[in-house]
Amino acid sequence: MSQKLTSRAADYSKWYNELVYRADLAEHSDVRGCMIIKPYGYAIWEKMREVLDAKFKETGHSNAYFPLLIPKSYLSKEASHVEGFAKECAVVTHYRLKNAEDGSGVIVDPTAKLEEELIIRPTSETIIWNSYKNWIQSYRDLPLLINQWANVVRWEMRTRLFLRTAEFLWQEGHTAHATKKEAIEEAEQMLHVYADFAENYMAMPVLLGRKSESERFAGAEDTLCIEALMQDGKALQAGTSHFLGQNFAKAFDVKFADKEGKLDYVWATSWGVSTRLMGALIMTHSDDEGLVLPPALAPIHVVGIPIYRNDEELALISEKFTELGKILKAKGISFKYDNDDNRRPGWKFAEYESKGVPIRLAMGPRDLENGQVELARRDLKTKEIVNWEGIENNIELLLEAIQTNLFQKAKDFRTANMKKVDTYEEFKAQIDAGGFFLAHWDGTIETEEKIKQETQATIRCLLLDAEEEVGKCMVTGAPSQQRAVFAKAY
Amino acid sequence: MSQKLTSRAADYSKWYNELVYRADLAEHSDVRGCMIIKPYGYAIWEKMREVLDAKFKETGHSNAYFPLLIPKSYLSKEASHVEGFAKECAVVTHYRLKNAEDGSGVIVDPTAKLEEELIIRPTSETIIWNSYKNWIQSYRDLPLLINQWANVVRWEMRTRLFLRTAEFLWQEGHTAHATKKEAIEEAEQMLHVYADFAENYMAMPVLLGRKSESERFAGAEDTLCIEALMQDGKALQAGTSHFLGQNFAKAFDVKFADKEGKLDYVWATSWGVSTRLMGALIMTHSDDEGLVLPPALAPIHVVGIPIYRNDEELALISEKFTELGKILKAKGISFKYDNDDNRRPGWKFAEYESKGVPIRLAMGPRDLENGQVELARRDLKTKEIVNWEGIENNIELLLEAIQTNLFQKAKDFRTANMKKVDTYEEFKAQIDAGGFFLAHWDGTIETEEKIKQETQATIRCLLLDAEEEVGKCMVTGAPSQQRAVFAKAY
Repeated sequence: MSQKLTSRAADYSKWYNELVYRADLAEHSDVRGCMIIKPYGYAIWEKMREVLDAKFKETGHSNAYFPLLIPKSYLSKEASHVEGFAKECAVVTHYRLKNAEDGSGVIVDPTAKLEEELIIRPTSETIIWNSYKNWIQSYRDLPLLINQWANVVRWEMRTRLFLRTAEFLWQEGHTAHATKKEAIEEAEQMLHVYADFAENYMAMPVLLGRKSESERFAGAEDTLCIEALMQDGKALQAGTSHFLGQNFAKAFDVKFADKEGKLDYVWATSWGVSTRLMGALIMTHSDDEGLVLPPALAPIHVVGIPIYRNDEELALISEKFTELGKILKAKGISFKYDNDDNRRPGWKFAEYESKGVPIRLAMGPRDLENGQVELARRDLKTKEIVNWEGIENNIELLLEAIQTNLFQKAKDFRTANMKKVDTYEEFKAQIDAGGFFLAHWDGTIETEEKIKQETQATIRCLLLDAEEEVGKCMVTGAPSQQRAVFAKAY
Repeated sequence: MSQKLTSRAADYSKWYNELVYRADLAEHSDVRGCMIIKPYGYAIWEKMREVLDAKFKETGHSNAYFPLLIPKSYLSKEASHVEGFAKECAVVTHYRLKNAEDGSGVIVDPTAKLEEELIIRPTSETIIWNSYKNWIQSYRDLPLLINQWANVVRWEMRTRLFLRTAEFLWQEGHTAHATKKEAIEEAEQMLHVYADFAENYMAMPVLLGRKSESERFAGAEDTLCIEALMQDGKALQAGTSHFLGQNFAKAFDVKFADKEGKLDYVWATSWGVSTRLMGALIMTHSDDEGLVLPPALAPIHVVGIPIYRNDEELALISEKFTELGKILKAKGISFKYDNDDNRRPGWKFAEYESKGVPIRLAMGPRDLENGQVELARRDLKTKEIVNWEGIENNIELLLEAIQTNLFQKAKDFRTANMKKVDTYEEFKAQIDAGGFFLAHWDGTIETEEKIKQETQATIRCLLLDAEEEVGKCMVTGAPSQQRAVFAKAY
């Protein structure tokens, strides 16, 4: 807790990396591109997982588990899927090591070569649809609503903690339906589950939209997404939900008999969010002092720190805090009492500030005498002296207020950084400053690519609730029916 | 739900395999040795995970996540560890596929070869201790109490669903301590956590013991274990807790400064249970009709089945069951109302019997009239007509009684199948019939190996609470201080 973090203004990217280490969330491992999620970071991920898992179950989904390893040939079965994923696979070719004859350690045993190489799953459509083939015969077997919590590996060349790592943790839903309509509704439903989670738990406002063709998931007919705006003005795709049409059903020959006995391919969706959400959470709320967490996902809601000169004072303060801890626990509020004698109060203040604990209470002998306590609020960095009597109710209301405030602040920021532009000149002049830009686009891949080449901005999405608005493409002048959302993105 | 299961008496192994499929718990995937855990099986594993996770947290542990992939050289750092695990590793050698030039699909891109091969973790001691090196400097950093829920891969040649699979799910605790005493106490504490879970949730009695030297974990100084007895008389190791001494601290150079500033290597433990527990659960309680589940781990506690001739009757019965469902939910009892019109009651009875749902309620028009319901108990296969009024209290008590009964039945079975033998002739004559055998052993690896060669029985453990008893080794006649527990094992 020695040095201050690099400020966001000075170097946003450096600030992010330092913060992840300072808040003890994660670190790089010696294995290229793979991260270690440390206990405090993992505790936040566990909270995310718990909330999402309950939402998946409420909407009728069950969890299951499919193999980590996928035969190489499966990837090839869906043509566009293999194009999207073959380039970044970890490939298992052997199944045994042996001692080197020169005693230098272990080497791969050349006699233990696999007949067909196995891929560590980059996503599980292929292995899951290979199973669904046997699980689905009739309309009675539908809908099939399954989710999996798993690790996946994509051999990314440029990695950043949480945002882009070779191995990451995620959930992937894979559903099968009797009708196209039902599958589309499922994809939309899950997008709304993600949006609800992002806004009401992460306190992160999101745009709900549809990807342009070139940004679609490899193998999907339609990719829906939620897009958030980070404090540096860059967009971050926080979750996707795909309508897969009958592509995987055809690739893996999954047909069902309807009530009349007629055979047809089933309709599919898949949808996922990952540990990338941790990066989104950090970059939405945190400040130059460190992490800022919405109470709904904070592992510790309140920390209590004693300030004392002798054991007698410590004993009296400890009694108060211990009692409060019990009361808060009964309210579902997690309280940590830090009476570690090896650290000074100032060190602890900085520590919990950097870890984003929403409320800090500090009590000294004078507070004890006056029936008061110092209460510091992480989001606003305000401090006040409040009455000890009834503090639990004060805390409860304050946590709600912090949650609301963080969302509102992020939403105000997005509102201030989302604008309509009508000419390409305007667009080019402003895009580097960051933000979402609503601009008319002629709908062609060529124009999209030109914009990307010239500005590095991509189409983040076509808003689901966009107003229809006839206009002209800012680049080509060709007619357009709707504005697309452009931004530079993570 | 057509055919009956093969009976346990006819072919225990076949019965097990059929049951896993019939109860919809898991299935083989096309990937050699890897299983698919189906939603119903995964729901039981989730319950196990939830209970264990809470116990780990109560005892002060935090979850974290370490990389799936381990550099090959790490394995070699602890001498006996590499001997134990190098032989069964999945090895990643490349990181990209490309299209075959002849258009036949994708092939491994030879230019994308890793400089150092990566191993899919068979267990994570090496990668975790490589991190602990940076996390531990002083006594203030100790104890370090971390657990990980993860998938691991061991390239087993003969696999069986849940019992032995190439990929399996597990938790692995890895702790670091300042003193030997504290590390030993931690290993013992976690063994007791496992035993408590096995007995009070799985309703599976276990022996608590210590492994003989030859059965120890590769890299451990002492391996503690819980051992259960399956219905076919074979033993199953259900969990292990290792005192690792300073072996990994030395291999990865992890030292800490004590209060006086003196440097020493830290002391370590590791401990784990896996999806193997699913196999143990199945084989402890199930019968020729299918799965039998202890209520503490059953995803569905009670199923309600309507018997009706017309919509009007169905509506009246549905009303009753729906109301009951709400009352049970409030009590934390999970209730499934199966009003699927596509299946007949007889089919449903067999279905829930094979899935081990502890209590089945069936209500027809006559029951409705009389204010009664038919209640069937899965463990005893008894049926009775009971009053509808107050059924929720009846169910609550019954679930407790079923839990107790299953444990007692399993314990009685073990008592009946655990005997002292004093001569090798006696031992050889009885070992094939199954059970635990308490016999004197001279403590040498040679004798242990001879017994294994001649009878296929192994030393399961040396009981922690064994009475000291001077005797003579049943094989060599050499003096012995304690009886060892022998059995044939999974």
